[in-house]
Formats: sequence, structure tokens, C-alpha cells
Amino acid sequence: MQKKIKDGCRDLSLRRTARYLKKHDNYIIITHASPDGDTLGAGYALYYGLKEIGKQASVICPDVIPKKYDYFVHETDHVDINNATVISVDVADKRLLGSLCEIFGDKIDLAIDHHISNTRFSKNLYLDADAAATCQIIFELLTLMRVNINTLTAKALYTGIATDTGCFKYSNVTYKTHIITAQLYEYPIDAAEINKLMFDMKSRRLLELEQTVLNTAEFHFDDRCMLLTVTADIQEKTGCSGPDLEGLSVISRSVEGVDAGVTIKQTDDNEYKISLRTYPPLDASLICKKLGGGGHKGAAGASLEGDLESVKAQVLSAVREVMEETYAGTVTAK
Amino acid sequence: MQKKIKDGCRDLSLRRTARYLKKHDNYIIITHASPDGDTLGAGYALYYGLKEIGKQASVICPDVIPKKYDYFVHETDHVDINNATVISVDVADKRLLGSLCEIFGDKIDLAIDHHISNTRFSKNLYLDADAAATCQIIFELLTLMRVNINTLTAKALYTGIATDTGCFKYSNVTYKTHIITAQLYEYPIDAAEINKLMFDMKSRRLLELEQTVLNTAEFHFDDRCMLLTVTADIQEKTGCSGPDLEGLSVISRSVEGVDAGVTIKQTDDNEYKISLRTYPPLDASLICKKLGGGGHKGAAGASLEGDLESVKAQVLSAVREVMEETYAGTVTAK
Repeated sequence: MQKKIKDGCRDLSLRRTARYLKKHDNYIIITHASPDGDTLGAGYALYYGLKEIGKQASVICPDVIPKKYDYFVHETDHVDINNATVISVDVADKRLLGSLCEIFGDKIDLAIDHHISNTRFSKNLYLDADAAATCQIIFELLTLMRVNINTLTAKALYTGIATDTGCFKYSNVTYKTHIITAQLYEYPIDAAEINKLMFDMKSRRLLELEQTVLNTAEFHFDDRCMLLTVTADIQEKTGCSGPDLEGLSVISRSVEGVDAGVTIKQTDDNEYKISLRTYPPLDASLICKKLGGGGHKGAAGASLEGDLESVKAQVLSAVREVMEETYAGTVTAK
Repeated sequence: MQKKIKDGCRDLSLRRTARYLKKHDNYIIITHASPDGDTLGAGYALYYGLKEIGKQASVICPDVIPKKYDYFVHETDHVDINNATVISVDVADKRLLGSLCEIFGDKIDLAIDHHISNTRFSKNLYLDADAAATCQIIFELLTLMRVNINTLTAKALYTGIATDTGCFKYSNVTYKTHIITAQLYEYPIDAAEINKLMFDMKSRRLLELEQTVLNTAEFHFDDRCMLLTVTADIQEKTGCSGPDLEGLSVISRSVEGVDAGVTIKQTDDNEYKISLRTYPPLDASLICKKLGGGGHKGAAGASLEGDLESVKAQVLSAVREVMEETYAGTVTAK
């Protein structure tokens, strides 16, 4: 991969990336918009690492950083843009830089990322699509550079690995993920406390949303299909919208015996967005294709127009058709 | 610890335990009642390990094994009780053997356990209270014995470690936990699938329970106290009782800003059981002591008599008193 240049973007090895970081002195580290644990963890761990070897560095996030990350987020240096090496962490596409895209979109000197979908927008790129988190890469980098890892760095790295793997639950976890995490336990990171903050805390607003939406639950086709509805009314009443609604799709397929979890979200007067989650052998993309949408086998979506009842009828009809094809006629409508 | 005998129970080292297992030939392995992932995982992993070295072994569980463990639970040998070495796994007290206590309670030759509260009911004991799960111990044992670990063994061990740590979330997780888990990833265990089964699946009955109970939620004292009520009526309507209700205490303190989560469960006409979860500096045991109960700093309980309204009033008054003492008068009742 050494020195491979494609679309004006040069692929670096881990070793060359380490050398690159040692060579320069003033860094601006940029996270993606709507920051999560991995982009922030990677950004700050890299920052703390660079400080350990006497560099100047600044972490810039396009959006306000949620308070729950306060335990590793601190003020960073002020670095002059005109005299800085700009690094993006965990950013797959320059559009994900949000409000910073205009200023930095074409000025990223080095991107460190683990998304296979990375669009090669940077001058240099270290991409490891097998890494469960960008924080896993930063750990390897700092180790290779023989940079001292302090407790703050370890907390930041743990946060990124834990959040991007659903606390070691998802299929992106590997042997290496656990080996690296074990090494972070050598520091007093208080992982249980971090996990409580990251996974067990819910705003009252979100709790009320879930509660209200669960009251709309309908079960169809021998209870193999669960349908949740989020009307504009519910969104207004609970003050929840956009990203708040993401978690609902997970609920829709977390019930034993449910193969198809449908969430219908109202987006306008007569407009609805459908999110579908399925379990094999049921293919979500086949169902959503029938509705003019698309997606993957396990998760797909579509947009429909009409009143709620007609939208529901269309969705249920598509689910039933594909269920019948898939289960060869064993499904009966209730 | 070698050969230390106390209360007729001899402490074994890991090495002696390994030697003990090699020496005998016919084993009955017993799990605790209301079996969980760790006792079953440890029992079956030990079974598969002993089979690898040509022993006869049987796994006996006092209760029906939930179907979700089917991926590593298989039929075991028939071993004559009179000619067997009896091993308990993950059993802290012989009463936890449930229906098997009478037959096996005083006949346990070797207990392998990680509960610091182990009551030394066995002839021999290997106890490692620092192990996050008994499965962690079984892994070390099999490794020390140089027994081949097959995929079924690895799946069983992963299950025990994952379930006893809340998927690596809790404070019992250590460096060693992650190192051992990494090694289990060397087998095709499909951990993501296991985790889905163990953590993301909920029966419709439980979902309905949560939903109904959330509708009873009350917030008090500047929303620092959340109160959930599970009346006999709710238990009857949802068909949920006993262990089904355990998860509710977790919900009661999972809301941002809530320091005291109270769950009031009706146990009889005029009887209620209080479960309290708190965050520091609030001490749950202080609150429950005022109600005639007790417990730990983060989790405590009490039993109260009276009608629901008077029980609520008593609980809220105790919460308020301790909150006022703890926060020095900054709490105002709503």
C-alpha cells in the first residue's frame, strides 16, 4: 500500500503514518459533525499523544460536544490554521465535516479512518477497515510511536472502542479489539463508569418518546411483524425528532419472535418515512423495493405519501408478500 | 492456599484443581437453579473439555434450561450417581441448587466458583473471586490442562463471560477478562449472534410489562427521584412476576438526572416490596433503613404494609429526608 496514489490521495502504512506525525509540529485535528464517542475519543487521544511528544495541537469539532464526554474532553491549544497540518479522524467523507467542510474540506493533510466507504478526500490516508473503531487505530499508532499513554488517553480510546462496538456486542469486534481493550485496563479508566454514561443513561424526553411510541405497537402476521408509529403529534408532544428517533428501529426488532420490525415516522402532512429491520431469511431490501425504497438485507427504508392508514396498508401488504415468498405460504394474516 | 482446610472444605489451587479433574473419570456437573449464562456456560464448557480427554460426564440443571442456550446445550452422558465425582459450577451456596439440593447438597466433591460469598459447602473448592465469571476460571483450567477447546466450548465460555459482565460493561471486568475473550475470538463463535440472543431479545410479555410500568412513572424532588409502581393488577394483566420484575429496577435509575430510582412492587393485598437504586453520593441503604429494610450504597430494599398511597408517601418521605441530608437542603419537594 506504500505510496499508492489514487484520486490524488496517497495511502499510508501505519508506520509511515507514525513517521508523518513525528515529522510535523502543529496540528489541527478535526472530528466529524454530530460527534460520537469514536471520533471524539480518537481526536482527543491523538491530541494527548501529540502533546506527550511536545507538539502543538488543537481539536476542532463542527458541533457542540455533548457534556457526557467531559471526562476526557479538555481545552486544547490554539493553532494557526495557516501553519497547521490538518488531520481528520473517523471522517468517511468531507461532507461529514458539517459546518467545517467549507473551511477544511479540501485541506485535510491526513485522514485516519476505519470506514470502508472512505471517499479519499484527503492528501494522505491511513485506512484500516478491519478496525472496530478509529480509536483502535490510534492506540496502534501511539504504541508504534512509543508515545506514553496516560489515563486520559486511555479513557478516550476506551470510549471510542466501546461506543463503536455497542460495548463489544457487534460483529465488528475482533481478537485485536479485545487485546487492545485489555491493555487499556492497565490504566485506572473506570470503564464501568464510562459504560454507564455511554449506554445506560437516557434523557427523560427519550424515555417518554419510547413509552408513547410503544403504545402504538401493532403486531401482525402471527406476531412476526411489529409496527411502531411516530406521528407528527408524538414528535411535537415529546419534543423529539431526527436523531432522537433513530433508536426506535432497534426496539422494533428486539421482540422475541418478531422477524420484521417496522417504524413509520411522519415527516410531513401526508409523508411518511419507513424504517424496516428484519432477521434472516427475511430480506428487508426486498420489502422496501416494493415500496420504492431500498437498503440492505437486515435494514432498509422507503418514503411513502398518503394518510397514515393507507401507508400502513401499503407497508403491511409488502411485508406480507415477501413473508409469503420467504416462508412459502406458512404466514397467515391476522 | 494449598490444602488449606476450613469448615471441612479444602481450598485448591488452580493447578491442584486441574490435577483433580484429570485423576477422576466419571463426573456429574451441577449448575445452580434459575440457570444463567455463566453457570450453564461453565457446566457445558467443562463437560466438553472432559469429553476431549476421554472422561464420562453429565451436566445436570435443577431447572428447565431456557431455549436461548440451545446453541451450546446438548445431551450429555448418563453417569451413575453412586460412581460419580460431583462438581458444582458457579454455585455460591448449596441452597442455590434448588430441587437438587436434597440429593446433592452434601455430596459436592468440588465446587468451582467466583462468588466471594461462597459458603464452603463442598469437600474441595476452587474459588477465584477476582474472576468476572466462572467461565473465565474454566478457560484457565482447560488451558492449564492443555485440553483442546472446540468451538462449542468457546461459545459456552463466551456466553458465560458476556452475560456475567453485562457484555463487558460492569466493574467486574478486568485485563484478564478481555485477554481471555480475545482468545475465544480465535474460534468461529459468532459472538454478535450470541450477544443478540443474550442482550437484545425481549419477550413480548416483558415489553408489555415495561410499557405498562413506565406509564406509572412519577418524578419527584426536582425530577431527581423516579418512582415506578407494579401493582398486582399489572402483574396479572401482563402475566409477569418474580424474576420478570428484576429488570425494572435498572430502568428506574437509567434516566438522566435521576439519583434515586424506586420500584414499588405489590406482593399481597396490603404488602409492597421496595427496590431502590441510587447514584453517589446518595446512599440507598440509609433510605431503606428508615423503612425498616437495608442493603448496599447503590442498591437496597424494604418491605412495607399499607395501601399503595401510604406506602408511596412513606417511601417518598424517606427519600426526601436522606436527599436533604445529603444535598444539604438544595432539594425542594414538588
